Amino acid sequence: MAETRPDGLEGDGAARMNGAESLVRTLVGGGVEVCFANPGTSEMHFVAALDRVDGMRCVLCLFEGGATGAADGYARMADKPASTLLHLGPGLGNGLANLHNARRARSPVVNIVGEHATYHRAFDAPLTSDIEAIAGAVSAWVRTSPDSRQVAQDGAAAVAAARTAPGQVATLILPADTAWGEGGPVAPVPAAPARAQVDDSRIAAAAAALRSGQPAVLFLGGRAVREEGLRLADRIAAKTGVRLLAQVSNARMERGAGRVPIERLPYPVDQALAALAGTRHLIIVGTTVPVAFFAYPGKPSLLAPADCETSILAEPAEDQLDALRRLADELGADAPSARPALARPVPPTTGGLVPDTIARTLGALLPEGAIVCDESVSTGRTFFPMTQAAAPHDWLQLSGGSIGLGIPMATGAAIACPDRKVVNLQADGSGLYTAQSLWTQARENLDVLTLIWANRSYAILRAELAHVGANPGRKALDMLSLDNPPVDWVALARGYGVEARRVSDLGDFVTVLRAALARKGPFLVEVAL
Amino acid sequence: MAETRPDGLEGDGAARMNGAESLVRTLVGGGVEVCFANPGTSEMHFVAALDRVDGMRCVLCLFEGGATGAADGYARMADKPASTLLHLGPGLGNGLANLHNARRARSPVVNIVGEHATYHRAFDAPLTSDIEAIAGAVSAWVRTSPDSRQVAQDGAAAVAAARTAPGQVATLILPADTAWGEGGPVAPVPAAPARAQVDDSRIAAAAAALRSGQPAVLFLGGRAVREEGLRLADRIAAKTGVRLLAQVSNARMERGAGRVPIERLPYPVDQALAALAGTRHLIIVGTTVPVAFFAYPGKPSLLAPADCETSILAEPAEDQLDALRRLADELGADAPSARPALARPVPPTTGGLVPDTIARTLGALLPEGAIVCDESVSTGRTFFPMTQAAAPHDWLQLSGGSIGLGIPMATGAAIACPDRKVVNLQADGSGLYTAQSLWTQARENLDVLTLIWANRSYAILRAELAHVGANPGRKALDMLSLDNPPVDWVALARGYGVEARRVSDLGDFVTVLRAALARKGPFLVEVAL
Repeated sequence: MAETRPDGLEGDGAARMNGAESLVRTLVGGGVEVCFANPGTSEMHFVAALDRVDGMRCVLCLFEGGATGAADGYARMADKPASTLLHLGPGLGNGLANLHNARRARSPVVNIVGEHATYHRAFDAPLTSDIEAIAGAVSAWVRTSPDSRQVAQDGAAAVAAARTAPGQVATLILPADTAWGEGGPVAPVPAAPARAQVDDSRIAAAAAALRSGQPAVLFLGGRAVREEGLRLADRIAAKTGVRLLAQVSNARMERGAGRVPIERLPYPVDQALAALAGTRHLIIVGTTVPVAFFAYPGKPSLLAPADCETSILAEPAEDQLDALRRLADELGADAPSARPALARPVPPTTGGLVPDTIARTLGALLPEGAIVCDESVSTGRTFFPMTQAAAPHDWLQLSGGSIGLGIPMATGAAIACPDRKVVNLQADGSGLYTAQSLWTQARENLDVLTLIWANRSYAILRAELAHVGANPGRKALDMLSLDNPPVDWVALARGYGVEARRVSDLGDFVTVLRAALARKGPFLVEVAL
Repeated sequence: MAETRPDGLEGDGAARMNGAESLVRTLVGGGVEVCFANPGTSEMHFVAALDRVDGMRCVLCLFEGGATGAADGYARMADKPASTLLHLGPGLGNGLANLHNARRARSPVVNIVGEHATYHRAFDAPLTSDIEAIAGAVSAWVRTSPDSRQVAQDGAAAVAAARTAPGQVATLILPADTAWGEGGPVAPVPAAPARAQVDDSRIAAAAAALRSGQPAVLFLGGRAVREEGLRLADRIAAKTGVRLLAQVSNARMERGAGRVPIERLPYPVDQALAALAGTRHLIIVGTTVPVAFFAYPGKPSLLAPADCETSILAEPAEDQLDALRRLADELGADAPSARPALARPVPPTTGGLVPDTIARTLGALLPEGAIVCDESVSTGRTFFPMTQAAAPHDWLQLSGGSIGLGIPMATGAAIACPDRKVVNLQADGSGLYTAQSLWTQARENLDVLTLIWANRSYAILRAELAHVGANPGRKALDMLSLDNPPVDWVALARGYGVEARRVSDLGDFVTVLRAALARKGPFLVEVAL
C-alpha cells in the first residue's frame, strides 16, 4: 500500500524510508535510546523521523553545550552512548567544550551534526564551515555521510566507534540531502568487542614491583575506581601495603559506606608532588601517568619523582578488572584490608556556613544511591574526603577541565537513572557557562538538586595567579570577581522554571538540604559563601 | 634601578618585561583598546599585564560566546578590532559560533588564546587539545607563538591580519611560558593598507550592463550599505533605473530618515527567488553572489535566474565607495533619486501586540543614533521595512546565521559607542544561547535596551519543517516548543543584574518602550507574543 509522503519518497512503511529514518532506526537498533538535541533547519528530517520510530527519547536543550554535557553524564551512568543532534559547525562549536570533557572522561557519545546538502556546500552559504576540522579536535571517529543510502551504515559505524573501549566520541556529519534522500536498509551495530586482557608480563612486572618492599602506589582511574575495581585493589593493598590513589578527576567513582575508601591525587601542583614524593613504584590502572594540570614556572610537568619506576598494569581501553584480579591472585591477595568502618558524619550545628561544615553536612545527608555531579572547583576541596562515609553513592567529576559541565552532566545522569537522586555540587562561576540546562531539568521533571556555591568569584584563579608568579593589580583582580553585580541564582533558576531557595547560614542550609533531598524533581539552592 | 619581580624577571620598568606585557603594549600601540575576556590559568600573565599597561579596557564576560560576539559588535561600530582573551581549546570552542558570525560579517577580531606552556603540551594534560585546528575553522590567520621574545611581533602580525580588508578573524595562541618568559621589544603594527581600487574594466562592464536597458539589480553589502555607499548607489539608480537590493544579512547598514532606503533580499527561498526573477544583470558590490541560506528539496542553491549575467563591481576587500563613485561618474549619475520623504510612523493604538504593530512602534520611537542589533529571526520580518523612516540609525544583523549573537553583539556595540542607545531586537530562542552577556551589560552599565520577542518557540523551524518537506509529528513539534516550562525573561534578567519588565498588550508596550528609551543603562522588556 504505497503512500505518498511529503518528502517525495513513496513507500510502504519501514520498507521505504529516507536517510534520516534509516539512521534513527539504526541508532535505536544499536541501543542508542536517547538524543540530546538542539536542532536547526538541516536536522529537520532527523527530528521528523523521531515520530516514525519508537525507542528514541529526544531531550531538548536550549544550548548545545547542554546537549553534549548531558550525553557525557548519561554515558557515565548508562555505560553506553546517547546521541546528540547539533546544527552545523557553529552548533558543534557550542558543544565542543563538553565534548572535550567527554573525550577526557572516555565517555561514549554519538554526535549527529547536520550539514548543508552535499551540492549546496560549494556555494559557501553563511552557515558553511569546516565541520570535520572542528569535530576532529574532540572526536576519535569522524565521517561525513556521502549518500542517503550510506547513512545507516555510517550510523552503525559511529555507534561501534563510540562503544570501542574505553569509550569514544564519534561524530557523524549528515548533509541534508543524505537525510531527505532515500535511505538504505537499517544497519546492524556489531556487539562491542570485549576489552583486551593484558599480557602476563604486565601482571608479573606489577607483582615484582609490589614484592620489592619499596614504597609503591597503585594509581587508579577508569573502571578501577568503581566498586569491584576498588575491592580488588584493596585486597592487593592489604597483602602488599601498596598505597591506593585515584587520579585527580574521575568520570565515575563508586564510593561511600561499605565500599573501599580511596584518596585522590590533589589538584594543586605542590600538593600533588608531595602526595607522590618518595614513591619508588607507580603502577597505573585505567589511566595515564600523572601530570600537572597546568605548567607552573619552576615546577615539573611530571608529578612522580624522577627515580620512580612507572609501569602500566592496564591501559584505559584494557580490562582493568581482569588485570587487578589476576594481580591479586598472583600475589595471593585474597582478603580485604582490616579497616574499621568509618562513622558517618552528623550535620554540624556550629562553625558557620563554610566549606568544611558543608562537607560534613553532605557526608551526613547524601541519600543512598545518590549521583553526585561535582563541579565544586575550589570550594569543594574538602567535600570528597568528608563524604567517604556517606551512604553509598557515585561521584562524577570534571574530567577535561573545561568548566561548565556540572548542570548538563547532572541532567544527563538523571535521564540515565530516573530512580536515583542527582546532586550537582556546582561552583557559581562554572555554572554560569551552561545554566540553560536547568530548563531541561524542569521540562523533563528530572530529580536533580543543584547546590550553587556562591562565592561570587573565579576563586581558583586567585590562587592560580600566585602559582604562576603573576603579580595582580586592581584590574586583574577585577577580572576574577563576579560580585558586581551579584548573580541572583534564585532568579536565574526561576527564569528557567526551576524552584529555588537561597541560604546564608548553616542552620538554614541543613534544613533546606534535608527538605530538598526529600522532595522529587528539580530544585536549586544558592548557598551564599 | 633594577627591581625584582614576582615572575623572576628583573628589569627597569618597560625596558624589561615578560611576553604577556610585550603583547599588551603591542596591541595597545596597534590601536586595540578593548579586551573581551573570559580568562583561565593559562592567561593569568596577560591579565596581570593589564595593570602595568594603560590603554586596554578589559571587559569580563561570563561565557566565551559573549566575548567573541561582543568583539564582533565592537568591530562593526568601531571599524577596528578588539581583542578577546580565551582559555585554551575549549574556551575557543565556546567562542566559536560567534567567531563564525564575525567571520561572515568580515569583522576584524584579534583572539588571544592561552595554551599550555610549550614544554607541557607533550604530556597531554587534561585541557590539551588541537587549538590550531579549532581556530582554523573561523580564522583567516592563526599562529602559535614559539617563544616569549617573539610574542610582540606575533601580536603585531595578528593585528595587521585582523585589519586586512575587509576585516578578518586573527587568532594568536599564547603558550603560558611565552607569556611569562622575557619578552622582546614592543612591535609596531603597520598601518592598514588602503583598500584596492578596482580595474577600469569592472567599471566599464557594470556601466555596459546598466546601459543595456535590461532589468538590472545592484546587489549591495559591506561598505556599500553604509550612508555614503547608498547615496552613490542611489545616484546610479536615479540615472539608470537599476534596482538597489541589499544582501539578506548585513554587518551594518546606515539607514533611517534622510538616508537612501533599500530593501534586502528576503530570507525565505521562494521569496528570494521571486525578488530576483526577471533580473538580467546582477552587479555585485561588497558581497558575493546570492545563494540560498539552506538547500531545500527541488529548489536551486543559486538565487539569480539562470539567464542572469552576474558581474562583480567590487569584492568585499576592495574599495566599494571608490568603485561606486567611478561608476556614477562614468554614467554621469550626479543627482539623487526624486523620492518623497517617507513619513515616520506613529505608534499604533489598535491592532494588538503583534509583529506589525511592534514594527510601527519601533519605526516611531527609535531614537536618533540608535544602534539596532537585530536577532529577531522570524518575528522581525516586518521590522526592517517599517523602520525605514525612523530617525537615522544603524542596523546590525546576524551575518553568519549562528543564533546567539544578539545580546553579545549589543554589548560590544555599546562599548564601542557609549553615547548611543543600543536596541537589541531579540528572539527568545536565540537569546537563550548567550543570555549571560546581560550580566556584562549590568557590570559595565551599558546603555542597552533588550526587547525579547517571547513567542516561546523556535518559530522559524516550524516553517522550515515544511520547506524541507519533513512531516512532523508530536515529538518533532515538541522539539520546537519552548513553552514547557515558559522561560521567564524578567527573572533571568534580574538574575544577571538587569532591570526588566514584561508587557503583554500594545498600550503597555508603547508606554514601556518610551520609558525604556528615555532612561540610561541596561534594561530588558519581555514582549509576550
